[in-house]
Amino acid sequence: MGKIRLDDISTRAPKDFDKEATKTKTQEILQELDELQNLLFAESKHAILVILQGPDASGKDGVIRNVFTSMNPQGINVKSFKTPTALELSHDFLWRIHAVVPAKGMIHIFNRSQYEDVLITRVHKWIDDEGAYKRMKAINDFERLLQEHNSTRILKFYLHVSPEEQQERLQERIQDRTKQWKYNENDFKEAKLWKEYRKAYEDCLEHCNDIPWTVVPADQNWYKEYMIASELLATLKKLDMKYPGLKKSNEGF
Amino acid sequence: MGKIRLDDISTRAPKDFDKEATKTKTQEILQELDELQNLLFAESKHAILVILQGPDASGKDGVIRNVFTSMNPQGINVKSFKTPTALELSHDFLWRIHAVVPAKGMIHIFNRSQYEDVLITRVHKWIDDEGAYKRMKAINDFERLLQEHNSTRILKFYLHVSPEEQQERLQERIQDRTKQWKYNENDFKEAKLWKEYRKAYEDCLEHCNDIPWTVVPADQNWYKEYMIASELLATLKKLDMKYPGLKKSNEGF
Repeated sequence: MGKIRLDDISTRAPKDFDKEATKTKTQEILQELDELQNLLFAESKHAILVILQGPDASGKDGVIRNVFTSMNPQGINVKSFKTPTALELSHDFLWRIHAVVPAKGMIHIFNRSQYEDVLITRVHKWIDDEGAYKRMKAINDFERLLQEHNSTRILKFYLHVSPEEQQERLQERIQDRTKQWKYNENDFKEAKLWKEYRKAYEDCLEHCNDIPWTVVPADQNWYKEYMIASELLATLKKLDMKYPGLKKSNEGF
Repeated sequence: MGKIRLDDISTRAPKDFDKEATKTKTQEILQELDELQNLLFAESKHAILVILQGPDASGKDGVIRNVFTSMNPQGINVKSFKTPTALELSHDFLWRIHAVVPAKGMIHIFNRSQYEDVLITRVHKWIDDEGAYKRMKAINDFERLLQEHNSTRILKFYLHVSPEEQQERLQERIQDRTKQWKYNENDFKEAKLWKEYRKAYEDCLEHCNDIPWTVVPADQNWYKEYMIASELLATLKKLDMKYPGLKKSNEGF
C-alpha cells in the first residue's frame, strides 16, 4: 500500500453503515462460513492463516470470540504469542512461528505474530532500524513460502483503534471485575509509546505488504467483526473448493 | 466400574427422555458453558481434557462440532490422533500425547487418544496381552500425573454405538457426497472386528477407570450431545472458580 499514514485513516465505520443492519449481515456471513469451513477441512488443499495485530485493547480477543466461535473447533487453532521463552530466543525469530502454521484444511489465528519482532522490539530499541528491515525482509520471504509451498492464504489485519478508545478500554479492564485478569501493569506504559508504535506499524504496513494488510477501523466492535468476517468469506469463496470423492487410504485409524 | 459388559448397556436414550426437550436443554447448557469457559481461561488454575473414544462412526466428530463449536476457540484445542509417524514411533507411546495436553485455562479435546495404543494395536495383535496391561498401567500413571500435577480434570467418554447404527452411518459415508471424504476403505474391515474391539474396550473400561469413564449411549446424536455437555457443565461447576483480581506482571506483551 506504499507509504501510509494511519492518522489519516478513520478508526470508525463509514457513515453509511448502520449498526443493527451490519450485525445482522455479520451473522449471515458466519452461517455461510460454517459450510465453507467444513469444505476447507474436507478438501484439505488449502490452509488459512489469520494474523491479528494492533495496539493493546484494540480488540483482538474479541474478534476471536465473536467471529470464530461459531466455527468447528476441529478445524480451528488459535495461537497467542507472548514474550518468547529462553528456548525460543535461542532460535531465529521465525522458529516458533513456523512450528504452528496451519496444515492444509486448517484455519489458524495468530493473536499477535511474527510482527511483534519488528514492533515491541523496535519501539524498545532492542533491535536497530537495520535489524528491523532485515527482519521485515525475512518475514516477506517466510510468508511467500507458506503461500507458494502450502497453498496458505494469509489474511493480515491491523486493528486500527484510536488512542482515546484504547484508554477507555484499558480503564475498563481495571474497573470491570470480569476483565481485571486481562490487565497488565505494562499496558499503560506501553500506551505512552503510542507514536513509536504507530511509526513501527506504518513501517510494517509499507514494507511487509507483498501479502497485503487490511487496516480495520476498530473503535466499534460490530464494524470490525463485520469487516473481518467479510474478508474471510471472500477469501474462502475464491478458493473454488469441492468435496472430494471416495478415496483409497492406508491409514490405520 | 469393575468388570463391564457393553452388550448389557443400551446404546439408546432412556425412555423418559424426549428428543426436543433434551435438545433445548443442551442449548441451555451450552450457554452456561460459555461463561464458565471464560472463567476457566481467566482464572487459569485448572485444565480440562476431554477424551473421545468409540468405534468408527460412533460420532466423535459430531460431538466436537455440536458441543464445542459454541466455545471461544482461544480456549479450545482439538487434537486428532492418527496413525503414528515414524518420529512418534521412535518414542514411547505417550510421548506424542504428553506434548499436546492442555495448559491451565485450556480445554483440549482428544479425538481418539492414548487408548488407541491398547485398542487397534491389540485387536491386530501388534502387542500381546502382557504388553497391553503394562500400557494400561502406564496410562493410569500418566493420567494421575496430569490430574495431580497440573490440576487437569479428565473426562473420558466411550461413545457406545450399536453395530447396526454403525453400519448405517458407514453406508451413509459412501452415499452422501458431502461425507465421502470421511470414508476409509478400512472402515468396513475394522467393523468386522467388532467383537475383538469390544473386548479390548471392556478391558480399558475395567483397568483404566481410576479416572472414571462415562459410557455414552450414542445411537442418537441428541442424547449423546446432551450427556457430554452435562458432564462438562457439572465438572466446570465443581471447580468453584473466581475471576482473579488485578495482578502485577512482567510480561512484555
